[in-house]
Amino acid sequence: MASIFTKIINGEIPSYKIAENDQYIAILDAFPLVEGHVLVIPKQEVDKIFDLDKTTYSGLMDFAYDIAQAIEKAIPCLRVGIAVVGLEVPHVHLHLVPLNSIDDINFKNPKLQLDSDQMSRVAEKIKSSL
Amino acid sequence: MASIFTKIINGEIPSYKIAENDQYIAILDAFPLVEGHVLVIPKQEVDKIFDLDKTTYSGLMDFAYDIAQAIEKAIPCLRVGIAVVGLEVPHVHLHLVPLNSIDDINFKNPKLQLDSDQMSRVAEKIKSSL
Repeated sequence: MASIFTKIINGEIPSYKIAENDQYIAILDAFPLVEGHVLVIPKQEVDKIFDLDKTTYSGLMDFAYDIAQAIEKAIPCLRVGIAVVGLEVPHVHLHLVPLNSIDDINFKNPKLQLDSDQMSRVAEKIKSSL
Repeated sequence: MASIFTKIINGEIPSYKIAENDQYIAILDAFPLVEGHVLVIPKQEVDKIFDLDKTTYSGLMDFAYDIAQAIEKAIPCLRVGIAVVGLEVPHVHLHLVPLNSIDDINFKNPKLQLDSDQMSRVAEKIKSSL
C-alpha cells in the first residue's frame, strides 16, 4: 500500500507544498511542532534514510539545505534544526524545525493546531523566501 | 575561544574517535542518549549547520552516511536517526542515534553513564564496521 507521503506526492491527499522537483518534495508538516515545521521527502518510497542509495540521500540533503535557508528567512527563529526518526511512517522524511529552544524539537510535545488560513500563510511565506 | 569540538579535533581534549579526514571527524558523544550515539562534526568551526557553505554541508552529510551505515551494522537497533539542534555548543554537530523507539532521541532524557571500557568497546565495534 502506498504510504501517506506517496499519496501526497500523487495528489491523492492535499498538502501545503513548499517546493518540488522530479525526485523530492517539501511540504508543511500537517502536525507541526512549531510554525514553519517542514517535511522534506524523497519521491522514492524507502522506509529508512540510510537505505537510500548515497546519490538519492545526498540529493535529499541538498534539497533540504535550500528549503532550510528559506525557512530561516521566513520564520523568526534562532536556527533551523533537523530530525530524522521515521518510526511512524515507513517512507523517509526529514523534519526541518525552526528552533527557539531545544524543546521546540521534542516530538512528545502536543502538536500545534493551525487552521488552513494559517497553514497557507506559513507556506506562502516560506515559498516566497526560496 | 575554541569550541569544545575544536579542542577535541586538536587533541587537547580526549575523545573516542570513530573516523576522521581532513574536513570532518566522527566521535562518540560523551553524554550518549543510547549506546552507539555518535557526533559528526566539521573541522571548520561554524555555529549553525545552514551557515555552512553548501559544499561543506554536503560533505558533512556524505561523511555521516558512511558512519551511519557502520553504526547500523555494529549496534542492534531498528534504524539510525539524525538530529541537529546545536543550541548548546556553537560548533555544528550532527547526532547519529541508534533508535529502538522515538524516546531514544529525546534530548531531555538522562544520559547514559558508560565507563571508559564500555566507550572503547562501542567505538571499536563501530570502527570495525566501517
